[in-house]
Amino acid sequence: MSPKLALLLVVVLHNYAIASFGSDPDPVQDFCIPTTGIVGCKNSSAATVDDFVFSGIKSPGKFGETGLAAQAVNVNSFPGLNTLGMSFVRADFEVGGINVPHFHPRATEIAFVLEGSIYSGFVDTNNRIFAKVIEKGEVMVFPRGLLHFQMNVGDKPATILGSFDSQNPGLIRVPNAVFGSGIEGKLLEKAFGLNSKEIAKLKTKFAPH
Amino acid sequence: MSPKLALLLVVVLHNYAIASFGSDPDPVQDFCIPTTGIVGCKNSSAATVDDFVFSGIKSPGKFGETGLAAQAVNVNSFPGLNTLGMSFVRADFEVGGINVPHFHPRATEIAFVLEGSIYSGFVDTNNRIFAKVIEKGEVMVFPRGLLHFQMNVGDKPATILGSFDSQNPGLIRVPNAVFGSGIEGKLLEKAFGLNSKEIAKLKTKFAPH
Amino acid sequence: MSPKLALLLVVVLHNYAIASFGSDPDPVQDFCIPTTGIVGCKNSSAATVDDFVFSGIKSPGKFGETGLAAQAVNVNSFPGLNTLGMSFVRADFEVGGINVPHFHPRATEIAFVLEGSIYSGFVDTNNRIFAKVIEKGEVMVFPRGLLHFQMNVGDKPATILGSFDSQNPGLIRVPNAVFGSGIEGKLLEKAFGLNSKEIAKLKTKFAPH
Amino acid sequence: MSPKLALLLVVVLHNYAIASFGSDPDPVQDFCIPTTGIVGCKNSSAATVDDFVFSGIKSPGKFGETGLAAQAVNVNSFPGLNTLGMSFVRADFEVGGINVPHFHPRATEIAFVLEGSIYSGFVDTNNRIFAKVIEKGEVMVFPRGLLHFQMNVGDKPATILGSFDSQNPGLIRVPNAVFGSGIEGKLLEKAFGLNSKEIAKLKTKFAPH
Amino acid sequence: MSPKLALLLVVVLHNYAIASFGSDPDPVQDFCIPTTGIVGCKNSSAATVDDFVFSGIKSPGKFGETGLAAQAVNVNSFPGLNTLGMSFVRADFEVGGINVPHFHPRATEIAFVLEGSIYSGFVDTNNRIFAKVIEKGEVMVFPRGLLHFQMNVGDKPATILGSFDSQNPGLIRVPNAVFGSGIEGKLLEKAFGLNSKEIAKLKTKFAPH
Amino acid sequence: MSPKLALLLVVVLHNYAIASFGSDPDPVQDFCIPTTGIVGCKNSSAATVDDFVFSGIKSPGKFGETGLAAQAVNVNSFPGLNTLGMSFVRADFEVGGINVPHFHPRATEIAFVLEGSIYSGFVDTNNRIFAKVIEKGEVMVFPRGLLHFQMNVGDKPATILGSFDSQNPGLIRVPNAVFGSGIEGKLLEKAFGLNSKEIAKLKTKFAPH
Repeated sequence: MSPKLALLLVVVLHNYAIASFGSDPDPVQDFCIPTTGIVGCKNSSAATVDDFVFSGIKSPGKFGETGLAAQAVNVNSFPGLNTLGMSFVRADFEVGGINVPHFHPRATEIAFVLEGSIYSGFVDTNNRIFAKVIEKGEVMVFPRGLLHFQMNVGDKPATILGSFDSQNPGLIRVPNAVFGSGIEGKLLEKAFGLNSKEIAKLKTKFAPH
Repeated sequence: MSPKLALLLVVVLHNYAIASFGSDPDPVQDFCIPTTGIVGCKNSSAATVDDFVFSGIKSPGKFGETGLAAQAVNVNSFPGLNTLGMSFVRADFEVGGINVPHFHPRATEIAFVLEGSIYSGFVDTNNRIFAKVIEKGEVMVFPRGLLHFQMNVGDKPATILGSFDSQNPGLIRVPNAVFGSGIEGKLLEKAFGLNSKEIAKLKTKFAPH
Repeated sequence: MSPKLALLLVVVLHNYAIASFGSDPDPVQDFCIPTTGIVGCKNSSAATVDDFVFSGIKSPGKFGETGLAAQAVNVNSFPGLNTLGMSFVRADFEVGGINVPHFHPRATEIAFVLEGSIYSGFVDTNNRIFAKVIEKGEVMVFPRGLLHFQMNVGDKPATILGSFDSQNPGLIRVPNAVFGSGIEGKLLEKAFGLNSKEIAKLKTKFAPH
Repeated sequence: MSPKLALLLVVVLHNYAIASFGSDPDPVQDFCIPTTGIVGCKNSSAATVDDFVFSGIKSPGKFGETGLAAQAVNVNSFPGLNTLGMSFVRADFEVGGINVPHFHPRATEIAFVLEGSIYSGFVDTNNRIFAKVIEKGEVMVFPRGLLHFQMNVGDKPATILGSFDSQNPGLIRVPNAVFGSGIEGKLLEKAFGLNSKEIAKLKTKFAPH
Repeated sequence: MSPKLALLLVVVLHNYAIASFGSDPDPVQDFCIPTTGIVGCKNSSAATVDDFVFSGIKSPGKFGETGLAAQAVNVNSFPGLNTLGMSFVRADFEVGGINVPHFHPRATEIAFVLEGSIYSGFVDTNNRIFAKVIEKGEVMVFPRGLLHFQMNVGDKPATILGSFDSQNPGLIRVPNAVFGSGIEGKLLEKAFGLNSKEIAKLKTKFAPH
Repeated sequence: MSPKLALLLVVVLHNYAIASFGSDPDPVQDFCIPTTGIVGCKNSSAATVDDFVFSGIKSPGKFGETGLAAQAVNVNSFPGLNTLGMSFVRADFEVGGINVPHFHPRATEIAFVLEGSIYSGFVDTNNRIFAKVIEKGEVMVFPRGLLHFQMNVGDKPATILGSFDSQNPGLIRVPNAVFGSGIEGKLLEKAFGLNSKEIAKLKTKFAPH
C-alpha cells in the first residue's frame, strides 16, 4: 500500500480515537466500545465483561506537589464508558494535601469520603461559598461547572471517590489555567491587582515543565 | 382562612413536592433545593452547605430477606440533588447475600467495590450476559436500563457504592414487579411456561405485605 | 491493495455500521442515512424518498411460541430513522397470544390498538400495576423503561402499533433475560425462592437454541 | 377568603396548567399527571390506569374545508403524556382531502397509513422534495421541523396515524400562519411576488373567523 | 493504491464531512474540529486559535432579489463550531429589503439590531403574531421552529446579527419550500384556494434556476 | 386572609420566581413567560410582543474597576427567554479595560466584535491557550465551561456582543471566586505557592464590600 495512503489512514484512525468520544447524549445502543486505534466501535458481539470492569484504582496513584494523587476513570482510561454518560475518579490526599480550586466544565460530581476528614466546598455563581469538613462515609455534591476544592485536614491520609455525569467531564485547575497557560501578563496584573514581578513569579511557578 | 382554601393549598403543596422533581436536563441555575412541603425551590440565598452534604450512609442499613441492605441517596432522600442530574447508593451484602435481578429505567450505574468479592453482571438487549466476580477496589459499569444483579461470593460481608446519572434513577426489582404487582396469572403462566399452581406460589411469595 | 489494509477497512466499515447509530440527540442536519456497509452517512443529495418510507409491515410477521408476531421498525431495519429519534413496531397476537413482560431501556412507547381486545399494562417503580383491557382504536402509553405486557383476551386475532421516542429503543424480555442468559443459578434460586430443580427447568426452557 | 386571594389563586392555577407542560427532557420520575386546574402533578398514588389510556380517536373527527379531520392526542388532550416525551394524532382524509403544507416545530413524525393511498412528502433545508404515494400499511418519517404535506389520491377515504417524539409537537399550517396571522401586506407582496390585491384576497381567505 | 480503494476512500471521506455534523448534544470534549475532507476530528493538539475565529462577515454579503444579504456562520462555514451547539448569522437589508417568512427547524434565534429600523416578528402555534418595529440596539428572540420574518422599514440600510442554539439550525424559506420544491399543484391549489394558473405562476417564480 | 397564609404565599411566589428557571431542555410549548412575582407562566394569550423584545442594552452600562461594563440579557433580566435556551450579553471596554479570566458553567459563548481590537482567548482542559487579537466584525467561540478572558488592546473603547446556548449560563469570575468567596487561606497558600501575607492581601482586595 502506498505511503500516502498509509499516512492518510494513520491520520484518520488517530483522529478517530478522539472523534469517537463525540457526545454525551442518551445512548442509542446498549454500549459502544471504541476499538483501540480504529474508528468506530467494536462489534458488540466482540465485547467482553472486561470491557465493563476497571481495575486500575485499587491503590493510590503517584502524589503530586500538593499532596494529591488523582486517578481519573473516564472514557480515555476506561473505554467501556463510551456513550454511557458517566465517569469516576479516585483521589488520595496526604496529610495536609489539597485538591486545588478546579472545575469540571461538563459534569456534576458526587464525592464520597472513603477515608479521612476533608475540608471540602464549592463556590456558586453569586460568589457564595458552601464549605465544611466532611468525614468518612459522607457524601457531597458539586453542581455542574462550579469551582470546588478540598484539603485533608485530618492527621492521616484521606481518600475520596468521585463520580461524574459525563464520560469525559474535563478538569481545569485554576492556578495552572490562569498562570500556567500563557495568558498576557498585563491582563493578569489588572485582573488580580498584582504587579508584573508578582505575576512573573506565579507564571514561573506554574509554567509547564 | 377557609377550610376549602387550606385543603387546596395542602393538595397543591403535597403534589408539588412530587412535581418539582420533573426533569433531568442540563440545569439552568447552580442548584434548586426543593423546599420541604412547599412548591418550588428554596431561595438560593437560603441554601446552606448542609443542603449539599448527606450523612446517612456511614453504616449499613437494615438487611432484607436476600441479605442485602441498600440505601438510596437520591433526590427523595437528599433533596440537594434536585436538578443536578446524579444520585448515589450504598449496598451492603451479607455472606451469600444477593441483589436480585433489577434495572434502573433512568440511569447508567457505576459500581465501586468498597469491600468483598461480588459476582456482578448485566444482560444486554441481545440477551448476552456480561458477568464476573469483581474484587475490592474494582469498578463496573451497568449501561442505562439494562438488567443487572450481584451476589456476595466471598466469606465476609461486602459493600458496593453505586452512582447514577439521574437524580432519581428508579428501581425495578424483577421478581417483585413480575410476580408481586398483580399481573394476570394466565399471562404469567404462558410467559414463564409454569402452571397455575407454580405461578400462584410465586405470587404469594412476592405479594406486598 | 494489501490484504492487511483490506482487512483493516473491512473491520472499520463493519464496526462503523454499528458506530453510526451512536446517539439519540437533537439532530444537527435534516437526516443522516447510514450508507450500507460504509462509514458515515449518504451524501444528502444521494438520499431518495424511499429512504424515508418503510413497506415491511403490511402484514403480520412470523408468530412465536407465545402467539406473538412482533416486527420492529427501528434504525436497524429502517436506516432512514438514523438521528431522527423515533422508531416503530407492529405486533400481531393470536387468540390468547401474549407479549411477555418486557421493557425498552431507551424509550417511552405509545401503543394503538389496530384490531382486537388487549389486556395491557405496566408496573411502576413503586411496584404498582396499571392494567386494563383496551379496545380497537384506543391508545395506551408505557413510560420509558418501565416493565409492560399484553395479552389478546378477545376471540379473534389482535394487532397493536407501537411507536417509540428512540431510533433504537432496545427490548429486554424478562423471562429470557433472567432465565436464558446464564445468570448464576444460586442467585436465581435466592431471588425467586425456587429450588435448584425449578430454576434448572426454567433455564432449560429459556436456553437459547 | 379575600377576593384578591381568590383571584390570585385562579391566576396561579390557570397559568400552571400551562406551565406544567414545561419541558421534554428525560423524565425523572415514572410519570407526572398534571392535576386538572391545580399546579403540579397528581400524587402518583392517585394515578389510575385511565390516566394512561386515551379513547377519543376511535372514529374520525369533524372534517374541515380541506377534507381533513385531524385529532391531536397530545399532552393537552391526554394529560398522562406529560413528561413522557411523546404524542399521537389520527388524521382522516375525504377523497381528495389534503393536509396543507405544515410543520411541527418540536418533533419528528412517523406516519402509518391505516387506510387508503396518500400522496405524502416533505421538503428538506436544501429545498429538495421527498414525496410519493404511500399505501395502506406503509410507514413514512418526517424529520423534525421540516415542512410536510399529504393528499388522499385514492378513491375512498384514507386514514393516517402519526406519532411524535414530543408531548406537544406544535403545528404550524403554512397558509394560515403566513396569510391569516396579520403579517404586514407589503412584506408578503415582496415575499411572494404578488400584488396588493392578490395578497388581500389571500388574507381574507385565511382571516380567523 | 488501487482505483477501487481510492474511490472507496473518496466516498467515505465525502460522506464523512457530512456525517461528522451528527448531533447537538452536550459536548464530551472541549471541541472537535472536523478535519477538512477527512473523517472525524483534528487531533486536538493540531487545533489553533484560528479554528475558533471567523472573519468572513466584516461587511455585507451579496444582496438577493428581496433586498437581503444573509451570511450564515454555521458549522459548514465555520467548522470550529462543531459540537459546540451554536451558530451565527449576519443579515443586511437594503431600504425596504425583507427576510421572507422562514423558520429554523433546529434552533431558537436571538436577533440584535446593529443598524436601522426593522419590522420584525414571529407567529406562534396558535397563529398569533408577535411583531413590531425594533430599533438599533434592541434584541428580539424567535422561539425554536416558529415562523418569523423581517422588513427594513427605515430610510437607510439595516443590519441584524442573529445567533442560534444549534451548530446547524437549518433554514426553510416558506415561499421557496412551498412553491419552488415541486409539491403537487392540486395540493397547493386546495391549500391556498388559488386556481391552477395562479399556482403555476408562483411555481414558475420560485422554480430553482 | 390570615397572616400565616399571606406569608406562605409570599414564600411560594418568591421561591417560584427562582424555580421557574429550572431547566434548559427542548421546549414543549412555544414559550413560557414567567409571570412576575407569581408561580408558573403567563397564560400564553396574555403574552405580547414586548415580552420578546429587550431594549436595555442600547448603550454601555456602568464601568467597573477593570474598565468593563457588562450587561447580561438572560432570563433574569429578559424573562421572555424562559425555556428558549439562549441568552445574550453586551460588554463594553474602556481603553485597556479587561474582562477578567472567567467561565460560564452552563453555556458555549459566541462573541462578535462590534467595535475595537480585543485580545481574546480561552484555555482548554489540556491547559493550552487559544488567544489572539480579534478586530471589529470578527467572531470568536468559547467552548462550554472553558476559562476565557478579554482585553481592549486598541486605542479607543471596544464593544463585544456575546450570545449563549443557555437561558442562564452563569458567570464565575476566577479572581473573585478564588480570593473573594472565603476559601480557607491555608488551601490557597498551597494552591498558589503564596505566603499567608500575599494571600491575605488578595483576600482583602476581593472581599465583597
